[in-house]
Amino acid sequence: MKPVNDTFLRALKREHTDYTPLWLMRQAGRYLPEYNATRARLGSFMALAQCPEAACEVTLQPVDRFGLDAAILFSDILTVPDAMGLGLSFVAGEGPVFAKPVQDEEAVNALYVPDPSEKLKYVTDAVRIIRRELNNRVPLIGFSGSPFTLACYMVEGGSSKDFSTIKKMMYARPDLLHRILDVNARAVTAYLNAQIEAGAQAVQIFDTWGGALADGCFEQFSLKYMRQIIEGLTREADGEKVPVIVFTKGGANWLEDMAACGCDCVGVDWTVNLTKARLRTKDAVALQGNMDPMVLFAGEEAIRREARKVIDAYGDVGNGGHVFNLGHGISQHTDPDAVRILVDEVHTYSRSKHAAR
Amino acid sequence: MKPVNDTFLRALKREHTDYTPLWLMRQAGRYLPEYNATRARLGSFMALAQCPEAACEVTLQPVDRFGLDAAILFSDILTVPDAMGLGLSFVAGEGPVFAKPVQDEEAVNALYVPDPSEKLKYVTDAVRIIRRELNNRVPLIGFSGSPFTLACYMVEGGSSKDFSTIKKMMYARPDLLHRILDVNARAVTAYLNAQIEAGAQAVQIFDTWGGALADGCFEQFSLKYMRQIIEGLTREADGEKVPVIVFTKGGANWLEDMAACGCDCVGVDWTVNLTKARLRTKDAVALQGNMDPMVLFAGEEAIRREARKVIDAYGDVGNGGHVFNLGHGISQHTDPDAVRILVDEVHTYSRSKHAAR
Repeated sequence: MKPVNDTFLRALKREHTDYTPLWLMRQAGRYLPEYNATRARLGSFMALAQCPEAACEVTLQPVDRFGLDAAILFSDILTVPDAMGLGLSFVAGEGPVFAKPVQDEEAVNALYVPDPSEKLKYVTDAVRIIRRELNNRVPLIGFSGSPFTLACYMVEGGSSKDFSTIKKMMYARPDLLHRILDVNARAVTAYLNAQIEAGAQAVQIFDTWGGALADGCFEQFSLKYMRQIIEGLTREADGEKVPVIVFTKGGANWLEDMAACGCDCVGVDWTVNLTKARLRTKDAVALQGNMDPMVLFAGEEAIRREARKVIDAYGDVGNGGHVFNLGHGISQHTDPDAVRILVDEVHTYSRSKHAAR
Repeated sequence: MKPVNDTFLRALKREHTDYTPLWLMRQAGRYLPEYNATRARLGSFMALAQCPEAACEVTLQPVDRFGLDAAILFSDILTVPDAMGLGLSFVAGEGPVFAKPVQDEEAVNALYVPDPSEKLKYVTDAVRIIRRELNNRVPLIGFSGSPFTLACYMVEGGSSKDFSTIKKMMYARPDLLHRILDVNARAVTAYLNAQIEAGAQAVQIFDTWGGALADGCFEQFSLKYMRQIIEGLTREADGEKVPVIVFTKGGANWLEDMAACGCDCVGVDWTVNLTKARLRTKDAVALQGNMDPMVLFAGEEAIRREARKVIDAYGDVGNGGHVFNLGHGISQHTDPDAVRILVDEVHTYSRSKHAAR
């Protein structure tokens, strides 16, 4: 069944829309007092992420508050390696930590594709509950980390500044890293298909760290495995196409290749000029992005001006094709009122542009 | 007087060379035991940087050990704002901290261009001593941070992950940031000219943080002021051209614009493909780079293979034009023996390519 507001899905399919739809990466998060209240009630981030009812609650909060054009499943990026038994925990001030990092052949041999109906059932349960509670107001986006991004955490054992451990493996033992990435790609495929089966109406692959790779390595170690996932995805559900968005932070170098990976939409960060990106990708895919999240700290006038710049840079919207977003996740220090102004400007200004056409 | 080994200068001027010259960003640094010994003797990083004799000693260490094709002045990137009286110190685990960050109109009004012959005399003294001790073996590179990169530290008051303070100023009060950048550009021009007068035979502008800027902002807030500096630089000394290298980490989006800023060479990070970069910049400038510093952790075979890849990606070397470097500063955890292997491979392999032509 189509959502009442299907602007987001139509923009992704490059169909005519009345205005430019928007959602915000990390829209359910710490900048919202209602999110912090729910999280405090649950006691921890992991407890929140693993409780389907609470995940539903925080997923809906920004949709209810701002009138965004899509909801995105609230979940952690590292659910898949956690389900592989690597022992995920969160250390205050340090971020995610894996008890069993994957740094040698023995650890690689032990990797397996987790059955999403077992250890990841809390995620598909959340998807079902969110779909029910959304009641078709707007579409629900499912997501996963990319195989390379998951591997960064799995091999490094947590966050990293220079990715020295995984890059050492990549340059010295590429065979080992390819084996990890293949398991990850198969695991993410099964995971995203389970989300789609449970009701996700679009999916995004977050390649947070692909941009840290050298030219040549990005194609071999990140993009290749995103393509493998997309080839294995269920692309239709309930008679509707399920669009796939691929987002590589720092991926500007490889836009043409990303547009050819089988996705419907490429997400871009703020270093990219949307006019040029559209020319480079030849309108073969939709584009998502790309306002600098820091604009939201600069007051109403700047927010409205910079939002219009992004919409103008995308240009002619006769065939949809543009989903407004930030170029990266929203900062936890953002004033929610700044988001209200942004949503108003994107909806109002883009409506005049779509109508003028 | 020309250095005995002027391969580096000739490559920058796009003249024929017998092999591809190399130096490494941050080549005088903590990965070298002899550097750590000197630093321990001086007591602190700042004491080392501000003692001309010690700065000379560590500048020469990697040249002596590895036979690199250029020396680079050992100094800190933040000497200029420190000379402006902003109170630089280094806090363990935090990096540089300014006691008086520049965050309002009053602080901007108080900024001034420091006279390099006064508070920065320790730098020009170091340049003179290094030139004497180098005894014309290889050229000496002078350097400065870019106006925007200096402003990042000045406005944030230290290191930053998201540059929220300077970006808020940029989007809300662009006039204020432009005033800071103009002072910085004039200060850096005077500073680099003083280095050239003291004997620097080439200069590099390190735009470490320009890549964090949105498209459009990079051109207005970073590149514009590097162009302003280059227009004011002494471009000839002792009858020889003084080449200018501009390096923006994450600057791949703007290579064409960077190549047109008046510089002789654009430094690029490892996300860039040198074949494509050369096509995009139409051989109008030399290129410097761009091996991933993490390759140096992956053993001899990988180092030799990846070094050859960089040289092959640059391609035809009939007219010089390529200076081998890493795509970013060398990691402090690098084994010096890995550098020895890299230098051997670059010199040996490139010599065969230059001869074959």
